[in-house]
Amino acid sequence: MTIEEDRPPGAQSFYCDLAWINGEVKSKVLITTAAGRIATVTCGVKQKPEDAAHLVGLTVPGLANVHSHAFHRALRGRTQVEHGTFWTWRERMYAAAAHLDPDSYRALATAVFAEMALAGITAVGEFHYLHHSPKGGLYHDPNAMGHALAGAAAAAGIRITLLDTCYLAGGFDTELNDVQRRFSDGDAARWADRVDALRKAYADSETVRVGAAVHSVRAVPVDQLPPVIAFAAERELPLHVHLSEQRAENDACLARHHKTPTQLLHDHGALGPRTTAVHATHLSQMDIDLLGSSATAVCMCPTTERDLADGIGPAHAVHTAGSPITLGSDSHAVIDLFEEARAVELDERLRTERRGHWRAAELLHAATDAGHAALGWPTAGRLVVGALADFTTIALDTVRLAGVQPAHAAESVVFAASAPDVRHVVVAGRFTVRDHRHELVEDVPGKLAAAIGGIFK
Amino acid sequence: MTIEEDRPPGAQSFYCDLAWINGEVKSKVLITTAAGRIATVTCGVKQKPEDAAHLVGLTVPGLANVHSHAFHRALRGRTQVEHGTFWTWRERMYAAAAHLDPDSYRALATAVFAEMALAGITAVGEFHYLHHSPKGGLYHDPNAMGHALAGAAAAAGIRITLLDTCYLAGGFDTELNDVQRRFSDGDAARWADRVDALRKAYADSETVRVGAAVHSVRAVPVDQLPPVIAFAAERELPLHVHLSEQRAENDACLARHHKTPTQLLHDHGALGPRTTAVHATHLSQMDIDLLGSSATAVCMCPTTERDLADGIGPAHAVHTAGSPITLGSDSHAVIDLFEEARAVELDERLRTERRGHWRAAELLHAATDAGHAALGWPTAGRLVVGALADFTTIALDTVRLAGVQPAHAAESVVFAASAPDVRHVVVAGRFTVRDHRHELVEDVPGKLAAAIGGIFK
Repeated sequence: MTIEEDRPPGAQSFYCDLAWINGEVKSKVLITTAAGRIATVTCGVKQKPEDAAHLVGLTVPGLANVHSHAFHRALRGRTQVEHGTFWTWRERMYAAAAHLDPDSYRALATAVFAEMALAGITAVGEFHYLHHSPKGGLYHDPNAMGHALAGAAAAAGIRITLLDTCYLAGGFDTELNDVQRRFSDGDAARWADRVDALRKAYADSETVRVGAAVHSVRAVPVDQLPPVIAFAAERELPLHVHLSEQRAENDACLARHHKTPTQLLHDHGALGPRTTAVHATHLSQMDIDLLGSSATAVCMCPTTERDLADGIGPAHAVHTAGSPITLGSDSHAVIDLFEEARAVELDERLRTERRGHWRAAELLHAATDAGHAALGWPTAGRLVVGALADFTTIALDTVRLAGVQPAHAAESVVFAASAPDVRHVVVAGRFTVRDHRHELVEDVPGKLAAAIGGIFK
Repeated sequence: MTIEEDRPPGAQSFYCDLAWINGEVKSKVLITTAAGRIATVTCGVKQKPEDAAHLVGLTVPGLANVHSHAFHRALRGRTQVEHGTFWTWRERMYAAAAHLDPDSYRALATAVFAEMALAGITAVGEFHYLHHSPKGGLYHDPNAMGHALAGAAAAAGIRITLLDTCYLAGGFDTELNDVQRRFSDGDAARWADRVDALRKAYADSETVRVGAAVHSVRAVPVDQLPPVIAFAAERELPLHVHLSEQRAENDACLARHHKTPTQLLHDHGALGPRTTAVHATHLSQMDIDLLGSSATAVCMCPTTERDLADGIGPAHAVHTAGSPITLGSDSHAVIDLFEEARAVELDERLRTERRGHWRAAELLHAATDAGHAALGWPTAGRLVVGALADFTTIALDTVRLAGVQPAHAAESVVFAASAPDVRHVVVAGRFTVRDHRHELVEDVPGKLAAAIGGIFK
């Protein structure tokens, strides 16, 4: 289940024209790798060694896509018809969710993860709740859908953190609906048993991690929260949770529990540095203080938050309070972490009518180092000795980036690059993408079209 | 000065797998052209005629980029350094403005317009105020800088409306600063004389139009407004004006004239269907009524408005009131009219926390038909008999658009396409871009890098 198994050895030495190291752009950087990790990093190497692969452009640590629902990719373009309300979106999303089985899920996710690789993403956090058969029964292997995702990531040549998601209710004091039934294990204890089996299957994997998730305070009744939180704490797993994406969640939580969702999670010990709150759009000052003081990470998904009309979350305030910020493409309206990174700054500019909240280096840190930490890969996301040898090269000689000054390459990439500018992607020291071409998956667009066409046939 | 002159005849017949015609996606559409115009449009043609060029993807009318300052392209990525305030941006913009002469301006604009062509743009409105020599003196030909832009557009194979801009003051009762001196003709009468000479030079051009612009109510003192407005009215020219982009302009105008900028323009007869208000970000209800009831067009530049922290303009309200909406890439933070189009809807979603303000067809209309009308090309922007033969084909088999349903191709393109998805661009019946390659300008990135490097050397 490791990426290395079926792949040729490839280059073990990489010569970067420019590389982003510890927040600065360095020239003529030689990176050597061994056993999937960075062995040496040397700046100012005047001549490219003959056996080194030449990475032309700016090489940055691999990008971490912290929040993904792979199957939402099938909805791209289909939820904007006529006036594309929130209900258009939800109806189509449930139609897709109702259709998938382990084979079609794996095929779709392989193509989606390959699209991510082409966009420079080397690790994905898949927020996974499509667990059981369409009517809610167990598959022969109750983790068949999780294995489909892990297999898809391996096939697409990227790392995955499988954030297995506890999803038990359709809302506060609300039953699951017909589609949601397949999301549920019945209770948190059964969820935990299943996830433990999944963890054991990947205990030795170098490219798959298993983490835990609470879908939201709506979908996990308050008496079922403690077992999920304890499960993650005892095993030191990442714990992710959708938080206050819409005002309606806050209103319902206040009505039911007389607390905000953040307060409720805090009171159950769910916050802390292993935890990532996804969206965190509508927060009170007390919520911001609770997230920041506990060093809970926040995952912003700005292109989804635009698409779903969530609003503009207080990313800068919660970061100032102490929370690392990370990025996710979530519903995959687009898959472009450069767009997500700049949107954190640009949407804050729209809200405040003021420039200059975030430096490009901070946004690139969110897309790399902070993102990997939130996914349980603390030794990835940096170009330093001992780190996982995952990196991404952005071409600076495209029509969009032409004219870049080397000294400002990070600013240019964050504020003007697009996913198609990604030239190479290296995972565990091997090329997953080389010269804009996926090395493991042929015809990614064709595979996407086939997988999506199968769902809506 | 017409695009045809130096070009091979090329195909005169185009077979579109899908084409967007009168707001609907049609299949197997044969378009024939003659003398640069559309001669026939036939839907449902089962087999491609042998001599027809095959346009694989969705063919839409050529995109109109209604508001451009070509030289701002040199700033991309350079104004975000550290915390990138508004003043970082303005300082760098003026450094670029101070440098350019007719030769370097032409070289830069050729590369920028070629970048636009690669992004599917077939007509640009260049809001042009870099008229005179750096110290303010006249060039030997006082329109040398305008000719540089017209020549650049011809070299890049797109149409241009040269919006020659009256710029006389540094603000209300404020002198021009050192850089601004080259923008000014001294008074509106001398501006008009110069622009009349420019008009005569392009009277017979099929690809260059001359229009008029008031830089803003700040930069044209109130006693100089009537001659500019009369000049445009007598000649039935498009008249463009920067309007209420920042609150500071409104405040200064109210302090000086006890009127909003919109009221001031209205009181001088500047509003109406030939007029385009650019940005229109901060409007009162009365402003919205004045713009809408006069059918004044509004040009939204959302990626610039994000970049410069302008805020979110009331595009939908002013459209409902009666104003056509058009799109511009303005400062060229990016050049991607799909991003501009969807941003009109997405930023409105952020502001209102509600989906579904605009239909994709309305946004595509803004990018094509309405945009061309605002630039004085009323017979462009539609795939109908007699229209200018300008069109753009977006590949639907890229990784971003794979899985599109033909029936929803317009929604997919508006909400998920990126500039690199543009496969072909035809202007006046000839390919300007074919298979993602510019047919007239070799190595567009190299030319951009050389031109920009020359400015900041």
